Amino acid sequence: MSKRQLKLGAFFNVPGHHFASWRHPSTQPERTLDLDYFVELAKIAERGKFDTIFFADGFGQELEEYSPSGIKLDPIIIQSALAAVTKKIGLVATVTTSYNEPFQLARKFIGLDHLSKGRAAWNVVTSNSEREAPLFGRDKHLAHAERYERAEEFVDVVKKLWLSIDKDALVIDKESGRYLDLSKVQPVNHEGKWFKVRGTLDAPTSPQGHPVIVQAGSSEAGKELAARTADVVFTAWQTLEEAQAFYRDLKGRLAKYGRNPEELLIMPGVYITVAKTEEEAVAKRKELDQYIHPKAGLKYLSHFFGADLTRYHIDDPLPEHFDGEDKTNPRIRANIVRNIAKRENLKTIRELYEFIAGARGHREIVGTPEQIADQLQEWFEQGAADGFNVMAPTFPDGLNDIVDLVIPELQRRGLFRTEYEGTTLRENLGLKNPARTVIENVKG
Amino acid sequence: MSKRQLKLGAFFNVPGHHFASWRHPSTQPERTLDLDYFVELAKIAERGKFDTIFFADGFGQELEEYSPSGIKLDPIIIQSALAAVTKKIGLVATVTTSYNEPFQLARKFIGLDHLSKGRAAWNVVTSNSEREAPLFGRDKHLAHAERYERAEEFVDVVKKLWLSIDKDALVIDKESGRYLDLSKVQPVNHEGKWFKVRGTLDAPTSPQGHPVIVQAGSSEAGKELAARTADVVFTAWQTLEEAQAFYRDLKGRLAKYGRNPEELLIMPGVYITVAKTEEEAVAKRKELDQYIHPKAGLKYLSHFFGADLTRYHIDDPLPEHFDGEDKTNPRIRANIVRNIAKRENLKTIRELYEFIAGARGHREIVGTPEQIADQLQEWFEQGAADGFNVMAPTFPDGLNDIVDLVIPELQRRGLFRTEYEGTTLRENLGLKNPARTVIENVKG
Repeated sequence: MSKRQLKLGAFFNVPGHHFASWRHPSTQPERTLDLDYFVELAKIAERGKFDTIFFADGFGQELEEYSPSGIKLDPIIIQSALAAVTKKIGLVATVTTSYNEPFQLARKFIGLDHLSKGRAAWNVVTSNSEREAPLFGRDKHLAHAERYERAEEFVDVVKKLWLSIDKDALVIDKESGRYLDLSKVQPVNHEGKWFKVRGTLDAPTSPQGHPVIVQAGSSEAGKELAARTADVVFTAWQTLEEAQAFYRDLKGRLAKYGRNPEELLIMPGVYITVAKTEEEAVAKRKELDQYIHPKAGLKYLSHFFGADLTRYHIDDPLPEHFDGEDKTNPRIRANIVRNIAKRENLKTIRELYEFIAGARGHREIVGTPEQIADQLQEWFEQGAADGFNVMAPTFPDGLNDIVDLVIPELQRRGLFRTEYEGTTLRENLGLKNPARTVIENVKG
Repeated sequence: MSKRQLKLGAFFNVPGHHFASWRHPSTQPERTLDLDYFVELAKIAERGKFDTIFFADGFGQELEEYSPSGIKLDPIIIQSALAAVTKKIGLVATVTTSYNEPFQLARKFIGLDHLSKGRAAWNVVTSNSEREAPLFGRDKHLAHAERYERAEEFVDVVKKLWLSIDKDALVIDKESGRYLDLSKVQPVNHEGKWFKVRGTLDAPTSPQGHPVIVQAGSSEAGKELAARTADVVFTAWQTLEEAQAFYRDLKGRLAKYGRNPEELLIMPGVYITVAKTEEEAVAKRKELDQYIHPKAGLKYLSHFFGADLTRYHIDDPLPEHFDGEDKTNPRIRANIVRNIAKRENLKTIRELYEFIAGARGHREIVGTPEQIADQLQEWFEQGAADGFNVMAPTFPDGLNDIVDLVIPELQRRGLFRTEYEGTTLRENLGLKNPARTVIENVKG
């Protein structure tokens, strides 16, 4: 058996994961609706042998005068286009279960999975913004527990639909005129609290069975959903200890669903600024902060705290709680940055938003290729991660730096592939093909 | 002003529009889930300077042992992939208004429109199959009138969303840090019978303003919807007289919505079998009928009549009405084929299904390039069509024949372009950019 290796996702937050990156001279924010731009970036990621290109999503974001974050395109549409110009890299699109129908979603993802010859992945989210609801005729977003309950049933229905026509059902015998073996069709007959779905999909299982399921929930409900249904978990941790605790916790939940620890890959996000010398890397990291417009900085923090911080001054000391902040709800994002502020001893609003402007709550590593590799290796070997979702400060330069400097160092250490293992995403991730396992694992 | 020219769509019914084409030795039915196949076909269509690649859609179709028609991929996913490998051709995807949310649909199409640099089109349908409802938890499909009422409001909301952020709103000034001009954002605040939508899209207007709207309704409600909202109408007529009457009728309805006749293009479907000699063309047309499996023929007619004909024998005489046929509803598809049977004096079930196996209710032309061009020219010049949605008997050969034989003849006559006029679909179709016209035309 070959040595266990890291799995790496390229998190495509264009024109860069640092939220002021669009103002850096090297970035091309005017191209973020341009397919040629995404094609160039995808080819860099595939040159780096990344497992996936990962698009986050969310809509109804507030449009801001000083930030590009409210402007973007639907991820599954971009990924479908990229399917035509990439060969091996996995294509992850984020789609919410709160404002979609299982059939429509299942059909789009199986389409992407076929067109990419088995490279599709669905990142399941339940939407965390109140601003999405009014786009769908609702006054309020579903409560957290209801969202997760709906998500769980949604994923079950989608998986049943994906498995409803086995690929061997397609006989396609020109001679006899027999096209389909109906005995290999298993119509869905689902009736649950949230969905009632009768029928089949109109496409068979794909070259990897069906799309990979990614999830990001770190709440109790999120962890249970992941343990039962996910192939990959994307998560955010700052310290080795936190990451190890989460890793142990989540892997420990698999057995009760009849799953082995290696059937679920845990990939925390990591924001990487790399250069040939440490000084150069630190300077590069700092350089981006000068582009943060104060108004954008306050707005940005507002999203984390779920409160309007624009009345504050950027040099105000950090208060215990901001005015208007909701203190009752479990606020995962607010807690992440509050912990950062405490640990890093950040004193003012500006210090906090500059600190998180790049990593946005994820782990941050700045340094030489060796220093970056050391830190990734530590988490990987000490039970904190199976791989990482890598955030580049800028596109294309920041991503090119990672591909040209960090990836070769990881390869030298035998920690990362030098060539894709297979042609499907599941083959590259080392995950089994679910169409070949017993269908009764799907609940219902 | 240059001479008025035909507009031509390439109707991608793979592996061929003849419903037994999958059994012909030249076709590749095993590739209909394969992106490389669609890329090859798209390049043929673009070589022929077609205005569009057109994908019909519908789901929940009965899976049949002797027919490939229940197996297919989501059209907008295929078109998004084709956006990456085509340059000038329009990309039409059919999506129903009955089982979608306006925001989700608007967002996907504006995504395709940006990625294709202004080549997207939405073919609006309301779903005509009862089999779709159970996939969405409904026992019954909406009634015809309700479907059209919902469709009308749906299209209005989608257009408002598409126009909610003007492309000039994107200032993207690195120097000042100003990204967006919020005065060029017009949030939607829609509250109607079917939808309540508040907010904006997350992408601005596209290089062609917004996607082209295509419709296919020929009912009274369908014609009104088209007259008010469509840019292109796809329709099915057998005779010059019928087509002229429809053309006059529909164009005559535009004035009351403040539109000029040239703002709506009428493009009937036409099934073309072409060869260098007439004999060869006729033989080619006949050849495909031998591949119709009797069970597939009966099933196929069943769909037209909305009744199960599998109890009949293929050589039975055609009855006035089939057992179980619904005679009360307006049944456009049933009436089309019944009229064909009368006009062509078809005596048996087999004669009927062989007659319609290729054109499927659309006009059929068989002959030399000159004969084909004569007939297309007649309709075009005699007020029956602005262009055609062209159906190839087989892919790729049937489409190649049309591109290599018919297109050059149309070009010789000055009836069809030798190069694309512009880069967007609207430029090629000669339609104006709706983002530059007054927004108040969209019904509030």
